[in-house]
Amino acid sequence: MIGYPNKKRTMVQNNVRDNYMGRGMSLEDDLNKSNAYYMEMKRALIHKKPIPIQIVKVDYPQRSSAKIVEAYYKTPSTTDYNGIYRGKAIDFEAKETKSKTSFPFKNFHPHQIKHLEQVLYHGGIGFVIIRFSYYDETYLIDAKFMIDAYYHYEKKSIPYETIKNNGSFIRQGLTPRLAYLDNVDECYFKEDDNNESKTEKIK
Amino acid sequence: MIGYPNKKRTMVQNNVRDNYMGRGMSLEDDLNKSNAYYMEMKRALIHKKPIPIQIVKVDYPQRSSAKIVEAYYKTPSTTDYNGIYRGKAIDFEAKETKSKTSFPFKNFHPHQIKHLEQVLYHGGIGFVIIRFSYYDETYLIDAKFMIDAYYHYEKKSIPYETIKNNGSFIRQGLTPRLAYLDNVDECYFKEDDNNESKTEKIK
Repeated sequence: MIGYPNKKRTMVQNNVRDNYMGRGMSLEDDLNKSNAYYMEMKRALIHKKPIPIQIVKVDYPQRSSAKIVEAYYKTPSTTDYNGIYRGKAIDFEAKETKSKTSFPFKNFHPHQIKHLEQVLYHGGIGFVIIRFSYYDETYLIDAKFMIDAYYHYEKKSIPYETIKNNGSFIRQGLTPRLAYLDNVDECYFKEDDNNESKTEKIK
Repeated sequence: MIGYPNKKRTMVQNNVRDNYMGRGMSLEDDLNKSNAYYMEMKRALIHKKPIPIQIVKVDYPQRSSAKIVEAYYKTPSTTDYNGIYRGKAIDFEAKETKSKTSFPFKNFHPHQIKHLEQVLYHGGIGFVIIRFSYYDETYLIDAKFMIDAYYHYEKKSIPYETIKNNGSFIRQGLTPRLAYLDNVDECYFKEDDNNESKTEKIK
């Protein structure tokens, strides 16, 4: 194996070898890599939030380094991803399920749904990215649709077919792994883009 | 000492006793309380991001509970606070200094400055909140001003007087502790607000 001087390049190599076209990678990993790509291309500024943790005890074996020796996971009070795209605040949660038939609501914490409601109230773009890992299919679902389903469905899950029919299918590739901003363009900026191309024609 | 059954209550008790009107509270605590207030009043949706941590080892003493027993602090790649206000993406960093004379740039990680540059590039509102704890004075400084100073100042700090003259003084009170969204209105929405009142007059 060739020792590349540059870590990034080695990573790409491994990904190509192990996970051709993204298959088998976790949704989180795909999104992180897609966001890094979008950031580098200056298309958007979107980050995953760190996992919230309650730190109880920290040791300082050396002056410079701190070692956390007791800590616990906290329940997140927001979604995992947020940032800025085309001047708009963007906020979303990503979940994957192994189920072949439906997406269970229990994948959400209730305050994540509450948080998405607040995102919409304050004028942000909110959605959920759901992957059915059995089919290796990933969909963008508008937050409003998901919130309504969460509160009003009688069953504790959304059927796969409903996601398929109401979601926007996200194309998978190499760079970016998940071209989900194309779906965001399609779902939230279509009118702007149409107006822009009209304006260009008039010019 | 009385053993309160509830940790939170003990903390609140201490706060009231030690920190009447916010004096002596940490800037982070003041901002978290202000953000909670703004969220409850539905004025804005702004959260502090969790501290990024590299988790190395987790124990599962019981089926339900996970205990992190080895973890380390990671360098943050973004600012600490972000969210949505009046439909716009908002992003800022908060720092306090004990210095009476200047704010040292070393308080920033270089990628936090980089991140603020990206926030502006993508059309978000970016700024820095700086507290001089000696004077108990807190200022909002526009990201553009701070980025320019960071790259072009010959000294390794900004004089207190410069912050005072170029920053927007943040009023402190009980609810919210730091009324910093009034400063955001003044610095970033003044034109909109003027236009709105003009429109109202025309009606």
